[in-house]
Amino acid sequence: MDTDNGMGGRTLPETDRQQRLSALAHDYLRIRRFSEQLCTPLVPEDMGLQACADVSPPRWHLAHTTWFFETFLLVPHLPGYRPFNPAFEYLFNSYYNGIGEQYPRPQRHLLSRPTNGEVLRWRQQVDDAMLTLIHSNPALTALIQLGLNHEQQHQELLLTDLKYSLSFNPLSPALSSPLAANEDAAPAMTFQPFTGGKVEQGAAPGDGFSFDNETPCHPVWLAPFQLANRPVSNGEFRAFIDDGGYQRAALWLSDGWAWVQQQGIQRPLYWQADLEHHWTLAGIQPLYPGQTLAHVNYYEADAYARWAGRRLPTEQEWEHAARHSQQHGHFADSGHFQPGLAGAGQLSQMLGDVWEWTASAYLPYPGFRNADGAVGEYNGKFMCNQMVLRGGSCVSSRDHIRATYRNFFYPHHRWQFSGIRLATDYPAQ
Amino acid sequence: MDTDNGMGGRTLPETDRQQRLSALAHDYLRIRRFSEQLCTPLVPEDMGLQACADVSPPRWHLAHTTWFFETFLLVPHLPGYRPFNPAFEYLFNSYYNGIGEQYPRPQRHLLSRPTNGEVLRWRQQVDDAMLTLIHSNPALTALIQLGLNHEQQHQELLLTDLKYSLSFNPLSPALSSPLAANEDAAPAMTFQPFTGGKVEQGAAPGDGFSFDNETPCHPVWLAPFQLANRPVSNGEFRAFIDDGGYQRAALWLSDGWAWVQQQGIQRPLYWQADLEHHWTLAGIQPLYPGQTLAHVNYYEADAYARWAGRRLPTEQEWEHAARHSQQHGHFADSGHFQPGLAGAGQLSQMLGDVWEWTASAYLPYPGFRNADGAVGEYNGKFMCNQMVLRGGSCVSSRDHIRATYRNFFYPHHRWQFSGIRLATDYPAQ
Amino acid sequence: MDTDNGMGGRTLPETDRQQRLSALAHDYLRIRRFSEQLCTPLVPEDMGLQACADVSPPRWHLAHTTWFFETFLLVPHLPGYRPFNPAFEYLFNSYYNGIGEQYPRPQRHLLSRPTNGEVLRWRQQVDDAMLTLIHSNPALTALIQLGLNHEQQHQELLLTDLKYSLSFNPLSPALSSPLAANEDAAPAMTFQPFTGGKVEQGAAPGDGFSFDNETPCHPVWLAPFQLANRPVSNGEFRAFIDDGGYQRAALWLSDGWAWVQQQGIQRPLYWQADLEHHWTLAGIQPLYPGQTLAHVNYYEADAYARWAGRRLPTEQEWEHAARHSQQHGHFADSGHFQPGLAGAGQLSQMLGDVWEWTASAYLPYPGFRNADGAVGEYNGKFMCNQMVLRGGSCVSSRDHIRATYRNFFYPHHRWQFSGIRLATDYPAQ
Amino acid sequence: MDTDNGMGGRTLPETDRQQRLSALAHDYLRIRRFSEQLCTPLVPEDMGLQACADVSPPRWHLAHTTWFFETFLLVPHLPGYRPFNPAFEYLFNSYYNGIGEQYPRPQRHLLSRPTNGEVLRWRQQVDDAMLTLIHSNPALTALIQLGLNHEQQHQELLLTDLKYSLSFNPLSPALSSPLAANEDAAPAMTFQPFTGGKVEQGAAPGDGFSFDNETPCHPVWLAPFQLANRPVSNGEFRAFIDDGGYQRAALWLSDGWAWVQQQGIQRPLYWQADLEHHWTLAGIQPLYPGQTLAHVNYYEADAYARWAGRRLPTEQEWEHAARHSQQHGHFADSGHFQPGLAGAGQLSQMLGDVWEWTASAYLPYPGFRNADGAVGEYNGKFMCNQMVLRGGSCVSSRDHIRATYRNFFYPHHRWQFSGIRLATDYPAQ
Repeated sequence: MDTDNGMGGRTLPETDRQQRLSALAHDYLRIRRFSEQLCTPLVPEDMGLQACADVSPPRWHLAHTTWFFETFLLVPHLPGYRPFNPAFEYLFNSYYNGIGEQYPRPQRHLLSRPTNGEVLRWRQQVDDAMLTLIHSNPALTALIQLGLNHEQQHQELLLTDLKYSLSFNPLSPALSSPLAANEDAAPAMTFQPFTGGKVEQGAAPGDGFSFDNETPCHPVWLAPFQLANRPVSNGEFRAFIDDGGYQRAALWLSDGWAWVQQQGIQRPLYWQADLEHHWTLAGIQPLYPGQTLAHVNYYEADAYARWAGRRLPTEQEWEHAARHSQQHGHFADSGHFQPGLAGAGQLSQMLGDVWEWTASAYLPYPGFRNADGAVGEYNGKFMCNQMVLRGGSCVSSRDHIRATYRNFFYPHHRWQFSGIRLATDYPAQ
Repeated sequence: MDTDNGMGGRTLPETDRQQRLSALAHDYLRIRRFSEQLCTPLVPEDMGLQACADVSPPRWHLAHTTWFFETFLLVPHLPGYRPFNPAFEYLFNSYYNGIGEQYPRPQRHLLSRPTNGEVLRWRQQVDDAMLTLIHSNPALTALIQLGLNHEQQHQELLLTDLKYSLSFNPLSPALSSPLAANEDAAPAMTFQPFTGGKVEQGAAPGDGFSFDNETPCHPVWLAPFQLANRPVSNGEFRAFIDDGGYQRAALWLSDGWAWVQQQGIQRPLYWQADLEHHWTLAGIQPLYPGQTLAHVNYYEADAYARWAGRRLPTEQEWEHAARHSQQHGHFADSGHFQPGLAGAGQLSQMLGDVWEWTASAYLPYPGFRNADGAVGEYNGKFMCNQMVLRGGSCVSSRDHIRATYRNFFYPHHRWQFSGIRLATDYPAQ
Repeated sequence: MDTDNGMGGRTLPETDRQQRLSALAHDYLRIRRFSEQLCTPLVPEDMGLQACADVSPPRWHLAHTTWFFETFLLVPHLPGYRPFNPAFEYLFNSYYNGIGEQYPRPQRHLLSRPTNGEVLRWRQQVDDAMLTLIHSNPALTALIQLGLNHEQQHQELLLTDLKYSLSFNPLSPALSSPLAANEDAAPAMTFQPFTGGKVEQGAAPGDGFSFDNETPCHPVWLAPFQLANRPVSNGEFRAFIDDGGYQRAALWLSDGWAWVQQQGIQRPLYWQADLEHHWTLAGIQPLYPGQTLAHVNYYEADAYARWAGRRLPTEQEWEHAARHSQQHGHFADSGHFQPGLAGAGQLSQMLGDVWEWTASAYLPYPGFRNADGAVGEYNGKFMCNQMVLRGGSCVSSRDHIRATYRNFFYPHHRWQFSGIRLATDYPAQ
Repeated sequence: MDTDNGMGGRTLPETDRQQRLSALAHDYLRIRRFSEQLCTPLVPEDMGLQACADVSPPRWHLAHTTWFFETFLLVPHLPGYRPFNPAFEYLFNSYYNGIGEQYPRPQRHLLSRPTNGEVLRWRQQVDDAMLTLIHSNPALTALIQLGLNHEQQHQELLLTDLKYSLSFNPLSPALSSPLAANEDAAPAMTFQPFTGGKVEQGAAPGDGFSFDNETPCHPVWLAPFQLANRPVSNGEFRAFIDDGGYQRAALWLSDGWAWVQQQGIQRPLYWQADLEHHWTLAGIQPLYPGQTLAHVNYYEADAYARWAGRRLPTEQEWEHAARHSQQHGHFADSGHFQPGLAGAGQLSQMLGDVWEWTASAYLPYPGFRNADGAVGEYNGKFMCNQMVLRGGSCVSSRDHIRATYRNFFYPHHRWQFSGIRLATDYPAQ
């Protein structure tokens, strides 16, 4: 967590401060309400679904994000605040050992109580108190912004987790509207060259909100490279499958090949056996060839790149490119919760549509330090065994994503909207 | 399933037949409604709870019992009947391979659809149709009685499964009213002698409804034996614990000792670490010493008997005793869903309170044959690796239990209301 | 363990006693040497093989049987005896909690020390001391006989375990000589009727050595039944496979069907995919159709019987038949370590060739009591979850098997020479 | 694999070529014989030990290294060469999918055949043929050097695997001579500063043998840093334990804390519960406080560094330091197979004693490409989920280790001689 609020040491005139607080209160209400809006198409019975330990029930997401504000803001900073239910500190703590023990993650679906209604009443109590706090304690702005970005991360997880959990129901319920039929091919894949050299990476003071893992800003040395103008499409990945991609050991990392063999993997998550339909939050839908590919893991991304004679970009290459040129794709506000067709630009869908696997392990930047206290567990303790993804997805909020943003998942994870953008050396190998 | 309806070849006068049909319709409605009444104290979010693969969600129980009537009665026998939703044939098939594939048991909690309301509407459609069928096709009486006894079994499972699933919620929700405080000791344990010899076992034609596994009636040879006047109490089992019962390998079967060691078992299921409280459907409650013990598995029952210098009865001994003398204990209609204090009779609580582990493996009686068709999978295919329990429990319906009734669970199972009645040779060893 | 030596209270004349002791010493040396002879065709590297936790290395069998004599005979009864190595008490204790902790069973293959040579030196020390003990303490005869029968059980296990462990080596080493080619069919299967009624079961005092689990002798009531004249042959089981036996759920117990599905079972253990060869201790050999079938588990035996329209006998039926008529088949002394072709008698191969699965769970006889002390763990603590097999096999010693002998394995076990003899009700169903 | 033989395009005079070939033959024989010498103190029964899937039996190591020369050199390049046994191609293939299927790794201990003697005869045949090949085909020098470096890697594994497998034997066999008693403290820990900037990394053409994963040579940008003068000692790690290091979640990566909790970890591998002795190849020996610590995994190394207020170096920092200053420590030729006391230099034990965990994930260098063919599977396919270790250990051969050498293991692995060298930013945090 970056506790630098980006305002340096300046003393703001009173009017500016009021406006800023009002803006924060406005953001607070907007973001908090969006969590609840995402649940509108759900039936109450959906709110407790959890299909594996990696995902959480919608009700849990609504509760945990509320827990964050109660635990890190209201209890320590709002005089006289009384927690809604003291037992919730334990029930809805995700992984903060500094706060205390946690209710076992694989059992979150067993929490039928508190009910949907109780969680909403808790949210109301916390929101009321937060508005008081926002207007009474401007020193907490950075921590509140962290809470709001945290809530936005869980909005994305609520959707990806729900997509996963509902996928086990053969009745194929639909929560969103399907994409319009579109059999167009994606634009031709071309590669944009970058000369590399000594370049700056990471979020700098004054850049606005960033998570702690994006800091500090630091130089790296990059060799010349090229980056694809768009992510890989469904149709292109279909060619990999048709070429025996899942049967050829030589294309795969050793751990990836073990995964393919042990799990009997033959296609991306959610693709149906006909390779022409996929499970979406709008139910089973046609798989359009030009549509950007999602739901592959790192092993699949790496194998595809090898098959294509390319490679995945490092996160440094990706960020360097994204700083100079980016075009936005599709975000959660589209309401489709599916990646779309890439545009014709030089670097389209750099932000939005799908998280792009990079060839970089998730590790601390030089000089990185965890924040003090339990909130220091936010990002730092996960810096092992995971790979960095960049760029946000079709279930991210547009104002939540930026070029320096580092997401991270284990190489075997597929339930996120994760896709592939190719890179290559310059000159090409 | 015993398809003999117990009426031999007699032709009933028309009036008798009408009354019997009316009685069946009355039973049908009473038993079906009781399933729904059991759910009255639940919040809607509870209806999907499933804490492990052995248990099922309440909503699933309501659906599966309905599936039974739709699949085995309405579809084959009621002309023009259309299933509520054809997909439910797969979703709510428990284990009948003769019907087709089954939705994976451990994932039943993932079926948020059909919703609670849809399941109730399905129940209504099936009940309406069943009433028509009952009055139009008297040849189906035995099969309908099987369906009703099946529903009563699931009523018991609904309660035991729910007790288990709710036990994972630290908020300790209460669904029923607690027992009145009672620190009385159980009556002194005495042993009732039986002379044995050649005795008859099993359900005979004309005895009324029985499951197929209770037949055929057959002779067995019993050595003289004695049976305890009542089940073991909480206080008595506490003495076993205090005497190091869970730490002494010599008291245990080999598989039982492995279970104790691997799971770190120290007390019956639901007992709290203080050994003075237990989890009940009325929340955490005091553990009364005279109250009949429940929630031990076969290994614990066997080890306790060895520690006490006694043994468990065989199912033949138990049934022989139960045929000659029985006093009823507590059933589901008490509304407490807990075993109570045993009465002062010679053989109290033979029926009700707790299922009593016997020393008999669940095997077919001599001459047993499975019924034809999918309904033949009801009991016979489970005749391996399980032990017989007898007598019903505090969550059974009083009219569902009889002396010949054979229940069966794996030796490691503890989530049923399963207890211990001691036996010994005669003269005593 | 039956500590009754079968001699009642008679005082033997001195000469008889000397002869009996000499006979015991002779048996002792003969049986002990046979263990070592069985290892003659092995290379030293084979002596540590252990392919799963159920089996033990040959070196371990040689050591554990020696441990039995040292622990239960020499240390308590031979004054001045010093154990070969005090650490061996722990290393080679199989499962006697009364003696102390045990080295973890799955790790027995990790005991490269003591070496083969050290184990043989230990055997020599123990044998020398045992001969002294045999001639100095006649009161120990029954316990020594138990030790010798224990060694004979491990001789059989040494062979079955080694067959299993070597089966993982694609080089297919051969330790024994193959059967002569024989394409003859088995004699026609016929059924021998028995009238049943009240019959005696179990070993009686004076019958000679028996294990404790064969006692006490007791009456049972048998319905009339019929027993097949011989076990099922390879060719007959091939017809079950060809008829889709492994694909038809209706033929299987529920636990058996789960086993078939989860393990992808398609044929008996050691059968090759061509269904015309099997792995034997003579290497890969032709599977002769008339040869008695081996290496099926209880689930397969039960499914075969159902497919054949018959059933498995209970152990009471089997024993009753074996007491009246038995013909011996092939034992370990044949040196082939394979079941052969059944003879033409009314009940051929009742003893020898293959252990025959019965429909009886392994449970104590009425009035059974464990012996006192650690040796009481020999049989009694396994009386749960296992099924009884009767009759010995082609790797048993001829003088080790009798009509009352009860062997027991879990229903899923296949590595023993376990086969099928059919039974049916009388008159036939 | 680096197929550049380091000789550029020069044509060597005939005499030089002969000498170089003689030197290669000399190296070949010296290195091959060392594998067998390492087995001298073993008993034949030790040769098949395999305590888990990560380790292999000594006999397997002797066979697999021979397989490498037969498969990659003799079969394709020596006319008329006939494999010793065609089945060995499958049995002793470790992980080369390009060659074919592999015998399952966890079952290597089941290969009692080929025997120890047969493997030695195979080695002799291959060595004879290799000497012919060395003198007849100088173009294969690089591939032969790869084979020899491969054999040296397996010599180290033979020792670390054997240490692990023997550790399960309570008899504590000793294969090597113990260290002389030494209670001296290690030299005071100081930090050597480096200014960083743009520096070169990796092996350059002409540097002599290197593995492919050390190439290509490339620039990186380093911030100023400091590196400790020596690895952490046993006594220093003892202070971490005494300070509750294994009980404080805040010190651990999330995956590391899960590992500690699930495995109940309380001390480094091989440390005895008294924290004053450890298991070594010389048996249980005193743990000297000044002796360099070994057998910690990445999680422990990272937690220790955090506890000490320092961090682990990146592999780039480590290599940069090692290029400028290095002092050798203890290698396999010492015969003790234990790390010793660090010397007094500025950067002692950079090479030898213990592999040093770096903060770098094992990933390809910019521009890295796998070699063509099966030998391309040597390193590249493991570039995921593992961390880089640098510097060799007390069981490495001195001539096998260099500053650019990259070793890699999973973060949870502890059975290697893996230790900790601390780093810190400059100026220190």
